[in-house]
Formats: sequence, structure tokens, C-alpha cells
Amino acid sequence: MTTTPPAEPHADIAQRFLEDFHHVATIGATEHQGVERQAATDADRRTRDWFTAFARERGWQVECDHIGNLFATVELRPGAPAVLTGSHLDSQPRGGRFDGAYGVLASLHAAAEIERRVRDGQLRPDYNLVVVDWFNEEGSRFAPSIMGSSVYTGLMDRDEIAAVRDAEGTSVGEALAAIGYLGTSTGPEEVAGYAEIHIEQGRILEQEGIALGAVDSSWYTQKLDIEVLGEQSHTGATAMADRRDALVGAAQVIMLVRDICSEFPDGTLVSSVGQMTVEPNSPIVVNSRVHLVADLRANDPVIVQQARDRLMERFQRAAEAERLEIVARDFDIRPNRYYPEAGVALQERVAAELGLSVRRMQTMAGHDSVAMNTITPSVMMFIPSVDGVSHCEREFTEDGDMVNGVHALTAVLAELLTGALDGVEYPGSAPAEGQG
Amino acid sequence: MTTTPPAEPHADIAQRFLEDFHHVATIGATEHQGVERQAATDADRRTRDWFTAFARERGWQVECDHIGNLFATVELRPGAPAVLTGSHLDSQPRGGRFDGAYGVLASLHAAAEIERRVRDGQLRPDYNLVVVDWFNEEGSRFAPSIMGSSVYTGLMDRDEIAAVRDAEGTSVGEALAAIGYLGTSTGPEEVAGYAEIHIEQGRILEQEGIALGAVDSSWYTQKLDIEVLGEQSHTGATAMADRRDALVGAAQVIMLVRDICSEFPDGTLVSSVGQMTVEPNSPIVVNSRVHLVADLRANDPVIVQQARDRLMERFQRAAEAERLEIVARDFDIRPNRYYPEAGVALQERVAAELGLSVRRMQTMAGHDSVAMNTITPSVMMFIPSVDGVSHCEREFTEDGDMVNGVHALTAVLAELLTGALDGVEYPGSAPAEGQG
Repeated sequence: MTTTPPAEPHADIAQRFLEDFHHVATIGATEHQGVERQAATDADRRTRDWFTAFARERGWQVECDHIGNLFATVELRPGAPAVLTGSHLDSQPRGGRFDGAYGVLASLHAAAEIERRVRDGQLRPDYNLVVVDWFNEEGSRFAPSIMGSSVYTGLMDRDEIAAVRDAEGTSVGEALAAIGYLGTSTGPEEVAGYAEIHIEQGRILEQEGIALGAVDSSWYTQKLDIEVLGEQSHTGATAMADRRDALVGAAQVIMLVRDICSEFPDGTLVSSVGQMTVEPNSPIVVNSRVHLVADLRANDPVIVQQARDRLMERFQRAAEAERLEIVARDFDIRPNRYYPEAGVALQERVAAELGLSVRRMQTMAGHDSVAMNTITPSVMMFIPSVDGVSHCEREFTEDGDMVNGVHALTAVLAELLTGALDGVEYPGSAPAEGQG
Repeated sequence: MTTTPPAEPHADIAQRFLEDFHHVATIGATEHQGVERQAATDADRRTRDWFTAFARERGWQVECDHIGNLFATVELRPGAPAVLTGSHLDSQPRGGRFDGAYGVLASLHAAAEIERRVRDGQLRPDYNLVVVDWFNEEGSRFAPSIMGSSVYTGLMDRDEIAAVRDAEGTSVGEALAAIGYLGTSTGPEEVAGYAEIHIEQGRILEQEGIALGAVDSSWYTQKLDIEVLGEQSHTGATAMADRRDALVGAAQVIMLVRDICSEFPDGTLVSSVGQMTVEPNSPIVVNSRVHLVADLRANDPVIVQQARDRLMERFQRAAEAERLEIVARDFDIRPNRYYPEAGVALQERVAAELGLSVRRMQTMAGHDSVAMNTITPSVMMFIPSVDGVSHCEREFTEDGDMVNGVHALTAVLAELLTGALDGVEYPGSAPAEGQG
């Protein structure tokens, strides 16, 4: 429980945060107000350099671990465990400037404000505070997503992940070394809690006019890795009856994956094929191989499993009808995760104190906090997303909503640093199956 | 008309041809007996080096023109025009070892045999003989296909073609310079005829047990360049109703293009999507843009045009239903081409003299001879393809069938060199529309 009354936020915090946020949005900026900063690219390096400079200017110690996670330690109580806060600076290809970066910038400015309060005697923390930029949350260049925090929390094996290669054959380890962000440490050892703030990526807060979302749980998700095998032939000279066109099989997979949502109650299941490679992909060649990744998510695991089983059966029917081979396998299964009730209630209390509206909600997207919540009580906070769109250049959140979030995160961190979640159970669930 | 009786083929020709053919098949060989020698790659260079060495060993002059066509001149009648013969050494990605290379190797050995007959006084030619390796017949790395012969015959503009770029941004001109095969000449000036031999790439000769196909015409073909535009969003967090998934639109395009063939009499229309690029192509992102190339071919232009019109209308209906934009435009339209009747009859006469069975047929695939036939009387010859498959590693033709073809080509060239097609009309048709 907090031992000090809620402190007035420093008047300049909003302005300083917004200046930095909009500056970082220029790193890897795309023509339509988005950013392109895939993991361990040069644009990712530049945001890391900026993060490092921000921390060092304040005398915070910066450390990069063996999978590229970047930690900035605000020493508040020497020798004590640390409360962590952060998100990720990497983006999707032509992604938005809010997804991930907002949480890291909000954490840096909240940490600066916390440091000020401690220095001014307004706050007496039991713990140190560490701001983190998790490596490769997006999973676009290197799959799967949520890499850095999954390695940190032991959900994924460091050496296996370091060996994952991108489409050009570069490994995670090589790419991190190339940008100068492959460390040797394993990050902070004793963790007392974690807080992350992120844009909602859905329409709920915007539609209801609510400032904050207190996330209580995450959806059950899984991916399907699908390979369609046919036979290469000539688009002109081969008779239609003789073609075994892998792309025709892939087209059916795409439609089956999309259409299955309509067999479940509205809004309960989402599914799409996101990634697809076509071989040999030449204008006058019937394709022999298509690889696809489908993403299935629902709150109810039974719905995902039913959809998956029906899809598996339909893929085989399509394969037989087209004389193709379709091989689909489950991967990246992530069970529902439940954030501690005490952290959700804490957000509601903080919101009330700040005069901000709040509601409980779920996350359909994955976040680093889902991994962190398996090792420490974690708090996941949302702010509104205009039109609910994300992973695109049009992703948008108002300055005022971002500033509300910075204040709320600061208040949550003040509580975590003074033991608000000490001894709280963080139920999580069984470790993820088949991840990696 | 020939002035000498048909000469006995030299006993060693079969063995020497087969040795060389199977040697060239090792250049860029793939694991499953195919080859990967896309235009102006290092593997393409190595076949060109081999071609050049073969010609220079015999004292033939080798010249590379300004678009990478490689000509080896067998001087038989100084100052006279030239009969050309050849095909292409480039291949599709993971293509077959017969498509193109067979015709070049057959031409080289036929030319060596012709030279021997002239030296031995068995043949008194009116013309010189030039063996050609046409640049980029396949069009996989650089589109469109049939580039080298189209530039040589004036159907495509040299500078426009030299500026065409591959997926990595390398231009045709840069790629040719990089492998040392960008010349400055424009190739042989006065042409007296052209002969090309190729595998059928269909099942007709194999099914009917016939040794030679005398090609009398080519199919009408066109491509559609199709762009599907949606909006990038999150595969997990975006509600299904809010997605505008370009990949879902592309899947419908692929099925529409394939299924339209069933609306026309069996075997009259073939169509496939061969090439496709997906953006941003990340596992957890709904795609915003897909580019596709569809290939439509029929003997009857009306069938292609009807199919094209129906597809255009259906693409718009799909776009409306999915709230996408689909833009399709015609390109690479190639009208029917008719080879001179005298050349077809010449093949039948030669086959009879050699004791080989022959039938008239059409080509559904494009060939360099289609371009050459617009400037000179051209002869197009087919040999059987096992199972009718091509543009794949499984492409196969028996040694005996290849040797029959070498003998037939030699006999046809002997006729062309002694004026068999002099003064013949080569009707062709109007120049190709929209090529390039």
C-alpha cells in the first residue's frame, strides 16, 4: 500500500513526454506518418541509441542482455529487487508509431518523474526501477513475436532464439551483433513487479469514451504453419487438368481461415493468414509450394481448438480435390493469461485518484506483459486507439490520451515501488506449449 | 529447293550432342535433375562461357549484342545474309534442363554438322549460319519473357528493356554488364530465315507416339497485372468486420482466374496466377497490398477476351464485397502468329526423308521463333515431352527423341541454307500490342 499521498505530477511532464514521443516517431518514419523499425535493423538501432542517451543523461545505468533486451536502471534503493516497466521500440513493417514505442517513452518519462519524487522526498521506494525496451515484440522479421521478454522469463530458450533466421538467412544473434546490441548479461535478477502501458488496438475505449483500460486477461491464441505442395509447370503449355497448382490450394486455405469466424458467435473468434511465401513465383510458372502462417485467437480456448480442427479437416479435403499436399502444424500456442486482480484494482484506484475513467478489458493482442506475468505480478494498461486500427501507418492516439496514460503509469509505478503488489498471487497459467 | 541429296548424318553426331547436352545440364543443376539459370545470373554466365568456348574451338566468330543476345557465326558464304538457329540457355527458377537449352545445343551440333558437310562438298549454301542464345526468354527474373529476340526484332525497345529491374532493383543492363555479356552491336543485319527446335511442353507427341511436331501457329495470349489494395491492421486485435484484407481479395482473384476455364469448352482456355507479392507479409499483420500476374491463353482471341472481361467484372464485385480496391490492367498481349506454310511443309518432307513421324500442331507457350517470324520466315519444331510437364525439375525428354530432333534440325537448316524458304511469305500478324 502506498505510504505517501498521491503526488501532483510535475507541470512539465506532459510537454517533455510529447516532445520526445514525437521525436522518436521520426526514427524510421514512413511517408504516411508510420514507422518501419523491424527488430535489429538500423532504425531499431537508432531508437536504442536514443533510449540509451536518454538514460545516460540522467545517470541511469544501461545494460543490454544476451538477447538484445535493453534495461535502464534507476537506482532508488541500492541492492533491492527491481520493479520493471517498459514495452518495445521495434515495429511492424510500415507499422504505426504508437505500438510499443508509446509504452517505452511513457515508462522513461514516468521513471524520470518517479526519480524526481524520490529526490524530493515525496516517495520512499522499497525497490529499484528498471525501464526496459524488449527485443522483437513484433515478430515480423524474426518469428515468433514477443521474443525478448519470453527469453528473459524463461519461456523460450536463448540459444534457440538467437539462431532463428530472417528471410535473408541472417540470425537473431548476427543481427543484434551487427547493430551493436548483443550483450552478455541475463538482465535484472530479482524482480518485484512489472507494469506496461500500450495502445488498445481495438475500438472499445474510444467508443465508450473511456481514458484507461485495465487489462484483466489475454485471449487464447495459436498459429498454424501451413505448407501447400503441388507441382511446378507451365502456365501456358500445361493442360488445366494436369496442373497441381499450390497457389490455388493456398487461396482456398486463405478463404477457409477467414470464413470460419462466421461459424462462431460474432466477435468471439478472429483469424487471418498474415504471412505467405510463394515458390517459384514467376509470371509463367504454376507454383509448386506455398507456405502460410494463420493466426487464430479467441477468449475461449475451445473455440480456437474447434476452429483449428475444422480447418485441418477442410485443408485435407481441399488438398484431395486439387491433388495437392497440405501439411498444417500447430505452433506458438499461447493459453489465456490472467493478470493479478490486485493489479487491476490498483489501476481502478489510481484512475479514480487522477480523475480518469477506467474499465476492465481483455487483450486480443499479445504483449510482453503476458510473458512477464509468468514470473512477477504484472499490470497491463491500455489507452484509446482511434478507429481501433494498429499495425498500420494510420494507427493513431491523441496527445491528451497519451499524457493521461503517462500520469496513470507514474502513479501505478509509485504504488508498485512501495509494495502495492507485494505477496500478490499472479496465477498466470501453465507455461506456453510449443512456443518457439 | 535443296540442290544436294540428303546427306547421311555423321555417325558421331548423336554421341557428341548427348555428351555436351548432359554436360550443360550440370551448370546450375538443382538437386532433382533440374537447373536454375535465371537470366544474367552467374549460372547463365557459365552456360554462355561454355557456348562461347564451343564456338571459338571451331573458329566461329562470337558476338554479344546490346541486350545480351549471343551470336556464333559459322561463315559459309562470306558477305551473304545469315540463316539463324537457336533458342535460349536461361531457365525458370528450379526449371527443367531441356527447355531452351535443348534448342541451343541442337543448333550448335547441327551447325557443326552443316559445316562438315559444306567442307566435304556435300552442301553448297547460299547463306551463312548463325547460332543464337537469346537473352531472357523465360522472363522470371526480368519481365516480360522473350526479351532478347523481341528487342532484336524491334518488337521491344532496347533502352526500355535494358532499364527493366528485377525484385532486388538490379536493371537488365546492370545485370548483363555484371556477368560480362553486355555488348554494343545489334546482331546480324541481314537474315534469310530462322529455325528453332524445342521440347513440346505438352502431351500430344508423347500420347500419339510421334517424333516431331511441325508448329503452324501460336496461341493468343495476354497477361493481367492485378493490384489488390486493402488496409494493414492487426491479425489479433482488429475485429473481423473492420478488416480490409488484401490477401482475402487476392485469394478470390486466384480462384476466379483458375475457375473461369471451366466456362469454355474443355482445353480451349488455360489461365493461372503465377506471380504474387504480398505486403507487408508479417505473421500477425492483415495485409494491405497484393500484386498478382495472371496469364490467359487460348487459340481463339475471342475466348481470351471474353474471359478477361468476365474476370474484370468479377474482380470489381469481389472488391466491393470485401471493401477493397482491385485494379487490373492488360499487358503483354501477344496475338496469334502463323508460321509460313512452306516451313511446315518443309518439316514434313524432312521428317519423311529421315523416316520420322511428324504432325502439325500449335504452341501454347511463347518462343523466340514467334518474335523472329515477324522479320523472317521461321520454322518451329517440337520433340516430345514426357508427361507434358515443363518449367519444373521433372521436365524430361528421352535421348533418342533429342537425337531425332538434332537430325531433323540439321536437315531443315540444310534446306534453309540452300534457299528452301526464299521468297516465302511469312504472314505473322500485326505487331504485338502493349508488349513491354
